[in-house]
Amino acid sequence: MPRYKLTIAYDGTDFHGWQKQSTPDREPPRTVQQEVEAVIRDVMREPIFLQGASRTDAGVHALGQVAAFTSERTLAPRRLRLAVNSRLPGDVQVRGAQYIRRDFEPISDAVGKHYRYTIAHGLADGAVPAPLFDRNQVMHMASCLDVNAMQHAAKHIIGRRDFASFTRTNHGKDSTVRTVTDCTVTASNPHRLRIDVHGGGFLYNMVRIIAGTLTEVGRGKITPADVPAILKACDRSAAGPTLPPQGLCLMRIRY
Amino acid sequence: MPRYKLTIAYDGTDFHGWQKQSTPDREPPRTVQQEVEAVIRDVMREPIFLQGASRTDAGVHALGQVAAFTSERTLAPRRLRLAVNSRLPGDVQVRGAQYIRRDFEPISDAVGKHYRYTIAHGLADGAVPAPLFDRNQVMHMASCLDVNAMQHAAKHIIGRRDFASFTRTNHGKDSTVRTVTDCTVTASNPHRLRIDVHGGGFLYNMVRIIAGTLTEVGRGKITPADVPAILKACDRSAAGPTLPPQGLCLMRIRY
Repeated sequence: MPRYKLTIAYDGTDFHGWQKQSTPDREPPRTVQQEVEAVIRDVMREPIFLQGASRTDAGVHALGQVAAFTSERTLAPRRLRLAVNSRLPGDVQVRGAQYIRRDFEPISDAVGKHYRYTIAHGLADGAVPAPLFDRNQVMHMASCLDVNAMQHAAKHIIGRRDFASFTRTNHGKDSTVRTVTDCTVTASNPHRLRIDVHGGGFLYNMVRIIAGTLTEVGRGKITPADVPAILKACDRSAAGPTLPPQGLCLMRIRY
Repeated sequence: MPRYKLTIAYDGTDFHGWQKQSTPDREPPRTVQQEVEAVIRDVMREPIFLQGASRTDAGVHALGQVAAFTSERTLAPRRLRLAVNSRLPGDVQVRGAQYIRRDFEPISDAVGKHYRYTIAHGLADGAVPAPLFDRNQVMHMASCLDVNAMQHAAKHIIGRRDFASFTRTNHGKDSTVRTVTDCTVTASNPHRLRIDVHGGGFLYNMVRIIAGTLTEVGRGKITPADVPAILKACDRSAAGPTLPPQGLCLMRIRY
């Protein structure tokens, strides 16, 4: 029984996230897992279970989601990819397919993830037009952000730390210690920036709260030197807001 | 009574084109003119008529549509723009506003227009991913196009010519003679190209049929040297297909 590893990209705008949801009394919401799984079942002509590496939330995008399934059938990965893509709607696509070892587990075998949060800022006075065609792929912010201050603050995020301040209060995880291997803030132009966070694993909403805290620095509400105390507090209320999902994209998962 | 000139940008995906439509028996379809007009009425607190320069079709985008209206009220153009933008939905925005002379007519005063048609090509083998986030802003084509041949063919389009082959048969216009001042084909990358057409005025579907004819050249169905005969035929069936609306964007109107 061959096992297949897929790299999946999607525009999360019209999806209720990755994870399939069972709703006994009504039509289940549209999710990436359910759509891709249904198409693969159709192509392979047998029920399969598609295990994803990351449960992205509603509205969150992915260029490098990873998922795996095992099938009775053998189908060359390139043909599988073409067959699945020809049946998928325009907002989700399989970008890579390969055979993988039988015991491959997308979640537990992942050694690193890269998320990107994109912000259009300084839109208040209307001199710079708000995002139009990519309005669902960036967060819009009226204030003008101080990128330099954000870059300094980002350095404090890097390391093996207790990120309890950077997840929702009832996170349901035993440990809130995680390792962020890199965190950078890059200005694509004077009104557009991206926050790239690389790490071994992430808590629920962690990247969106990191982005929210860095934007508090960018707006001058707090200083880069405040970030260590926010981490030390281990208290969600110490950190900045959870930024909205549409600015977030799962870029890549390393194995 | 001041008159205002607006530059309007929109993502045409969810609009039934620019032009307001009256449908006595049912809800009128969503159009750009109707949405912007309703917001301006709200801001100016009086009925206004918004005259647009170009009746873009359903699905066609604009970065530089121009429209004008006259109002009893005087409102600084910058304040007008901010007030209107704060009320408009995310897929349409006023990018510029200014006072204009009382007799300004957006249609008849236009001296030139620039349209761009964008194509993602060579997608057949799946090696290059299909457009995802901008899938509604480009035309997708399985074949790989010969950009060089298209560039040669584009040169034959330039000039003052009878474009009867490049509009629908019942075009309802007295004359089909128009002037194309420039027509270029540019490869942004090996799988993405744009066709830029500049001219004094355009017939219905003219840019989409020019793009369709150039892609026939790109696919090797016809040669650049066939274009003069297509023009000379003055027969719609001589030219290539009308490409779909989503690849088309009204970039700029000159006055």
